[in-house]
Amino acid sequence: MAPPTPKLIVPIDLKKKPWQQKLPLHNRWHPEIPPVAEVKTGELFRVEMVDWTGGAIIDDNSALDIKNLDLSIVHYLSGPIRVVDTDGNPAKPGDLLSVEICNLGPLPGDEWGFTAIFDRENGGGFLTDHFPCASKAIWYFEGIYAYSPHIPGVRFPGLTHPGIIGTAPSMELLNIWNGRERELEETGLQSLKLCEVLHSRPLANLPSTKGCVLGKIKEGSPEWETIAREAARTIPGRENGGNCDIKNLSRGSKVYLPVFVEGANLSTGDMHFSQGDGEVAFCGAIEMSGFLELKCEIIRDGMKKYLTPMGPTPLHVNPIFEIGPVEPKFSEWLVFEGISVDESGRQHYLDASVAYKRAVLNAIDYLSRFGYSKEQVYLLLSCCPCEGRISGIVDAPNAVATLAIPIAIFDQDIRPKINGVPTGPRVVKNPGLPQCTYDGTLPITKNPCATQLDYHAARS
Amino acid sequence: MAPPTPKLIVPIDLKKKPWQQKLPLHNRWHPEIPPVAEVKTGELFRVEMVDWTGGAIIDDNSALDIKNLDLSIVHYLSGPIRVVDTDGNPAKPGDLLSVEICNLGPLPGDEWGFTAIFDRENGGGFLTDHFPCASKAIWYFEGIYAYSPHIPGVRFPGLTHPGIIGTAPSMELLNIWNGRERELEETGLQSLKLCEVLHSRPLANLPSTKGCVLGKIKEGSPEWETIAREAARTIPGRENGGNCDIKNLSRGSKVYLPVFVEGANLSTGDMHFSQGDGEVAFCGAIEMSGFLELKCEIIRDGMKKYLTPMGPTPLHVNPIFEIGPVEPKFSEWLVFEGISVDESGRQHYLDASVAYKRAVLNAIDYLSRFGYSKEQVYLLLSCCPCEGRISGIVDAPNAVATLAIPIAIFDQDIRPKINGVPTGPRVVKNPGLPQCTYDGTLPITKNPCATQLDYHAARS
Amino acid sequence: MAPPTPKLIVPIDLKKKPWQQKLPLHNRWHPEIPPVAEVKTGELFRVEMVDWTGGAIIDDNSALDIKNLDLSIVHYLSGPIRVVDTDGNPAKPGDLLSVEICNLGPLPGDEWGFTAIFDRENGGGFLTDHFPCASKAIWYFEGIYAYSPHIPGVRFPGLTHPGIIGTAPSMELLNIWNGRERELEETGLQSLKLCEVLHSRPLANLPSTKGCVLGKIKEGSPEWETIAREAARTIPGRENGGNCDIKNLSRGSKVYLPVFVEGANLSTGDMHFSQGDGEVAFCGAIEMSGFLELKCEIIRDGMKKYLTPMGPTPLHVNPIFEIGPVEPKFSEWLVFEGISVDESGRQHYLDASVAYKRAVLNAIDYLSRFGYSKEQVYLLLSCCPCEGRISGIVDAPNAVATLAIPIAIFDQDIRPKINGVPTGPRVVKNPGLPQCTYDGTLPITKNPCATQLDYHAARS
Amino acid sequence: MAPPTPKLIVPIDLKKKPWQQKLPLHNRWHPEIPPVAEVKTGELFRVEMVDWTGGAIIDDNSALDIKNLDLSIVHYLSGPIRVVDTDGNPAKPGDLLSVEICNLGPLPGDEWGFTAIFDRENGGGFLTDHFPCASKAIWYFEGIYAYSPHIPGVRFPGLTHPGIIGTAPSMELLNIWNGRERELEETGLQSLKLCEVLHSRPLANLPSTKGCVLGKIKEGSPEWETIAREAARTIPGRENGGNCDIKNLSRGSKVYLPVFVEGANLSTGDMHFSQGDGEVAFCGAIEMSGFLELKCEIIRDGMKKYLTPMGPTPLHVNPIFEIGPVEPKFSEWLVFEGISVDESGRQHYLDASVAYKRAVLNAIDYLSRFGYSKEQVYLLLSCCPCEGRISGIVDAPNAVATLAIPIAIFDQDIRPKINGVPTGPRVVKNPGLPQCTYDGTLPITKNPCATQLDYHAARS
Repeated sequence: MAPPTPKLIVPIDLKKKPWQQKLPLHNRWHPEIPPVAEVKTGELFRVEMVDWTGGAIIDDNSALDIKNLDLSIVHYLSGPIRVVDTDGNPAKPGDLLSVEICNLGPLPGDEWGFTAIFDRENGGGFLTDHFPCASKAIWYFEGIYAYSPHIPGVRFPGLTHPGIIGTAPSMELLNIWNGRERELEETGLQSLKLCEVLHSRPLANLPSTKGCVLGKIKEGSPEWETIAREAARTIPGRENGGNCDIKNLSRGSKVYLPVFVEGANLSTGDMHFSQGDGEVAFCGAIEMSGFLELKCEIIRDGMKKYLTPMGPTPLHVNPIFEIGPVEPKFSEWLVFEGISVDESGRQHYLDASVAYKRAVLNAIDYLSRFGYSKEQVYLLLSCCPCEGRISGIVDAPNAVATLAIPIAIFDQDIRPKINGVPTGPRVVKNPGLPQCTYDGTLPITKNPCATQLDYHAARS
Repeated sequence: MAPPTPKLIVPIDLKKKPWQQKLPLHNRWHPEIPPVAEVKTGELFRVEMVDWTGGAIIDDNSALDIKNLDLSIVHYLSGPIRVVDTDGNPAKPGDLLSVEICNLGPLPGDEWGFTAIFDRENGGGFLTDHFPCASKAIWYFEGIYAYSPHIPGVRFPGLTHPGIIGTAPSMELLNIWNGRERELEETGLQSLKLCEVLHSRPLANLPSTKGCVLGKIKEGSPEWETIAREAARTIPGRENGGNCDIKNLSRGSKVYLPVFVEGANLSTGDMHFSQGDGEVAFCGAIEMSGFLELKCEIIRDGMKKYLTPMGPTPLHVNPIFEIGPVEPKFSEWLVFEGISVDESGRQHYLDASVAYKRAVLNAIDYLSRFGYSKEQVYLLLSCCPCEGRISGIVDAPNAVATLAIPIAIFDQDIRPKINGVPTGPRVVKNPGLPQCTYDGTLPITKNPCATQLDYHAARS
Repeated sequence: MAPPTPKLIVPIDLKKKPWQQKLPLHNRWHPEIPPVAEVKTGELFRVEMVDWTGGAIIDDNSALDIKNLDLSIVHYLSGPIRVVDTDGNPAKPGDLLSVEICNLGPLPGDEWGFTAIFDRENGGGFLTDHFPCASKAIWYFEGIYAYSPHIPGVRFPGLTHPGIIGTAPSMELLNIWNGRERELEETGLQSLKLCEVLHSRPLANLPSTKGCVLGKIKEGSPEWETIAREAARTIPGRENGGNCDIKNLSRGSKVYLPVFVEGANLSTGDMHFSQGDGEVAFCGAIEMSGFLELKCEIIRDGMKKYLTPMGPTPLHVNPIFEIGPVEPKFSEWLVFEGISVDESGRQHYLDASVAYKRAVLNAIDYLSRFGYSKEQVYLLLSCCPCEGRISGIVDAPNAVATLAIPIAIFDQDIRPKINGVPTGPRVVKNPGLPQCTYDGTLPITKNPCATQLDYHAARS
Repeated sequence: MAPPTPKLIVPIDLKKKPWQQKLPLHNRWHPEIPPVAEVKTGELFRVEMVDWTGGAIIDDNSALDIKNLDLSIVHYLSGPIRVVDTDGNPAKPGDLLSVEICNLGPLPGDEWGFTAIFDRENGGGFLTDHFPCASKAIWYFEGIYAYSPHIPGVRFPGLTHPGIIGTAPSMELLNIWNGRERELEETGLQSLKLCEVLHSRPLANLPSTKGCVLGKIKEGSPEWETIAREAARTIPGRENGGNCDIKNLSRGSKVYLPVFVEGANLSTGDMHFSQGDGEVAFCGAIEMSGFLELKCEIIRDGMKKYLTPMGPTPLHVNPIFEIGPVEPKFSEWLVFEGISVDESGRQHYLDASVAYKRAVLNAIDYLSRFGYSKEQVYLLLSCCPCEGRISGIVDAPNAVATLAIPIAIFDQDIRPKINGVPTGPRVVKNPGLPQCTYDGTLPITKNPCATQLDYHAARS
């Protein structure tokens, strides 16, 4: 009978650099990046991928690699993959591409990953005003479990997923992206008060030829120059899926992606061993190389059948995701709440981002009482299977956001107790994180009333 | 041995009006509203409550009661309840009050509830610019299940919970609330661009004597006048818990509430048979009367031990919640995504509220293809056990929010299929919602490219 | 609109004896016990019930009531309830009666229950040869949770369910029951070697007029005499459902019962707050009074459509059960295994009962190392939500049975550890169970190599 | 830092025969089979294994390979593996060996498996008197999912696990096994009435030199002759673990195995992609080749600390298992019940094996109404994630066993409906199973009243 072994269509050789792979990778979205492989609907195929930095981060005890990472070259994606039906007819604009994730995991021989806080001058993160220094945690995998020498006392099963999965945009969609993001970059600081609370910069990563990798398009060719100047960066999720960072998109899930160009031109990358909702530290998942085993179907004319344009053109759509029964389940959760009042005490109007920031800050301070530094908890909440919820969005002026943490990932009981936090041998012996200095001049947000429980402070 | 039957400390007689109950209710937060009952730690007690409108909404086929509801009188709360330890010493400011929810449910003989869209001129809601007309859906309970004659084809078990549970604020905390909310109300329209996207008005509900009910404090007395002018409204969740609308706060959960006044003065109300994350339609849960069976413990000095002030004073804290294993679980979910680009196509900066709005709009349009009107889906997503997640908050400029809907609540298969949406007998026969006209002049947000699938439109 | 409040059709007054209730109860299965109430399909109705002993067991610290209980009068059932469709046509033999359990719980004011080991001369139990003494544990309810002063250190949410739910047998079915059980009783000791391992006696409880209660049939009347002599006892589950003791038959479940007589004549009773698979201590669930809220549908001709006779007549069928998503879920389990080799070391052939006995004995001894007496664990495993599985039934000669215990119900970590069982303050301080002497002369099964960890033994 | 990639200690080359592998396999339990590898505690290592038949079953459309399989050569096991602590001291008799299953799966390039009914004259199965013909179903894997061309309309995620994992017995334990199994074989037919119901033969598989494979012990050597004559067969699970077939022993689980010989001598094999409780068809799991990633710890003196001898010697123990949160979860189940009355209508006494047989027969007949042949359902229930429970074991004379089937594995709704089983396009188009004739003379159990719904019968 037919062999069911998945066909390897994008191989990765970990001994080689990203730009030396047999099939070239790419790190931009553009309709004219040519496919590197073709698959048929119903066929089980395997795609391998480098980690999002293409191997720039090392399994060591220094955060210098994080501090100095060149963000212009991320994310290296595998693909594009052209999808045709069993008669050989390609997916067409207006179709919906169903992609089932049948299996996934780290690449054999590379069973480790990293989570990092980026320097405030280079990438930042959700809490960059509180934590401006580059830091890093290495994670090792024991099958489905991850543990870190840098964050002791926790071990959890991964809800492994691809951070990025998307189809190629059409030229029209690409122009929409570039237009709206340029407008934000040019006028954002004046008009958007949210920027005072979320300190990350820049506001948008506009197209740039620096670090641009375009697959089969040779660097330096006239074609390359043209495409590189207009190809969209991969940082934000957009209408084509892309960097959606949906942490439950694991084994047995499906993505329904809109098709904008002939063949769909599916690309994927940025594998995460595990991620918390929000991926708050920016390089916040457990980042790794890995593989996906996928199966595609084409729903002809599916965009019209199932998707709704939410904006001025029929291209303003979003993918749909289907999550299955196969994931680690946790029974008990500790939940931290935030409301849309910021650290200075100022009231914001139904702002879920501000509320979530406060919820995360609350959780960080709470968990730091159990023997962790705040940076350790910030990294942990970025990558463990915690859930970030918009609990209330109508009770003006306060949005209510919550962060739910599964109790079972800790080797101590983190619930509040009548007798207070336990002391002594059950408290984590904290080795600290590899961390760099912050050499910039931007002010650090101090929480005037926060507890002084940082382990390093307490120890000195 | 000791009888474990819960002691009824706040009874409700449903034949009487809210202001005629044996123990007076209240609808404001203020330290000087006197307790109506006292409980000891470890004691199982029962609190009954009217629905949040105090019976103003009727089980009928008209939405006029919704359109005309006087919002100054909500929410009627049961309490305050003074909590003392087994030696008779009351909870003290700085303590943490642990409240376990041992059981809850509707009041016998009153097994129904309602979900409503408020008129844009009177309350609004998360999508008030899209759905400005007052509408209503009645839900009937069959034990743990709810179904609605107004939204056929769905039936789901309730994650029943109190929408409001909180302790009394101290005078100092009350002043902080009133200060920051007044500042927002006065300057908000100028400074907060978010207001262009979230159209609800007013920005904050400041203290007002109109409709004020203060428990044992007699209306008209000088004391009443003073308190009524400064007592906080109950709409937003705040540092004391309050209207936190955390949908998983059901049987077996615990709340750890900060104590700001002697005795803690716990109040609760606004029972929800079921609610979706965000409670998007504002009166978006299945609102009902009900009862709670509670057990309190006092963690002495617990605020210092466990909570972190996140702001300029030690009072800027939030409660912690503990969720247990006892709730309806769903295996399969359909997930809708939104990014922080609004309906006009404009790019916002990492704005989770905008992203969630788009996710909800996407879900509404999608489900309307299965035989529902959009208003029906808006109400359904407000009250069914759907999950609203902040999936990505760092990939500038797009926040990614998701709305996950359990597939099992529908009596048809709502997944995308190769053959498209089924037609014929499996599609819901839509009776429509009781709905009023919108008589205001504010513009309605039209989504220029949305499908024209509204059942009523299609039918006519 | 129509009021959805469930109609109370069988009320119980706890201040009265079982035989003094407004609607008479019954404790036998017979086609001629007249219905006490009638319900329509689709109608939500409420049935209340006494505990299975009708109040004979007291909330105290003595097990004398257990030792002396008259087993001829159990179980008191509520009903029969005649079921008709919306046109008034009754359920007919050959139909299938779908009964949905919409809600259930203890009767208000009676929130406690008991679990007991019966004396070997009076009822026995699965391990009666090991534990011949009557013992008792009282459980108190805190909403959905139960705890016992007699078995400290555990607290768990109840998977509450009716132990007995069934339809009336036809005369033909009743004759089949009486025939096969009489044959077993008469010839069993000679032919069934299993009896050497399972020491309970008698082999079957044949019809007897002693203690017989027949609802509306007056005791002493000629009719009563006739029926009492042939009506089946309620101890075993049979073709009509009856005492099936399926522990997951809780809120949101459905039972599909065969109909043997016109109107179906549904009866129910023997409410369990919680039970472990197997209910090993015989009076092994947390027994209580309670209520059910039910809704019936009739599947016309459903026996032929859905049930298979598994035996010589079309009446040899079994009900089908549908379990829903609404129950306490546990993530982590400790699993004990047994194989079909008995305590004397003798090999049995694929005998799942023997294998399960060994698995239960293994679990009892293991848990007794954590500060419990073996009797306490025996009772705990009878009533906590543990799962008894037939894991392997084909690998001759050993059947493999397993008993899985949710780790979360204990307030200590019961997993094996490198350092052995913890000692000191985390170990349960064991108050012991109320227990009677065993005054009979049957030999007690001694496990020659079992550890001598019994708390009482260790203490003396 | 240290590389976490699991060390491959037992490799399998699928192009070679079982007896040609680099490290020799074995198919018997004996203390003197020498270890083929050594691991340290804490070390992550990988063990590969052939399928239980060593490749004798082919991916084709004939069941002849099943009919003719030589059962004397199964199961090929990988190991023994000697376990030492970090100081190099081996596990010692009396210790407990903790084995964590960190990961597992099929061998790359071999992603398929088989489930089979054995001929009644060669292996049989739980229902061999009903289904005497050899039959086979092939399953293909799509990542975590399996589907079969022979059983259409179902697809499910695998709870993949090793069927066999165990330590080597000591000579004393081996003698106990051989003694009790010989006694059964010699006297069983006379004394055990259960044999009338469970028709499998032989009663036990006693040691035999035929087909014996003993790892490093060369066939034909004097040592080989001695060991082969006394080494235990691998069919039944026993005190050392072995063929325990616990279907939840998947990713993230742990086994605590007793140690009987120095070094523990761990062996494993018989990988199952998925199995139902009971593995009723005998070759009833989805059998495959595969790999395990394991990590061992030694609990010194752990047998005394944690295990209870349940029999005449300290060796009469059983392993303990710990099941984690990482497995496919299903929300809704259809449950079939059986009582201990056999197909002839005869009453058995609390016999869980008979009750389970009736529950399985009930389920088979029920599901055959949805377009399947009974043989197809028999195979499906052997290998899909269904649960077999001992629900009641005390209500004499009826044991109650249940079989719960997750509804979600079917692509049609298998619940009973008012309108009966659907007809037409939703019913499975049944291609039938590869099946052989039964050429023996033993009588087939006919269920006199069973429905005549067999597809093949209906078709002809």
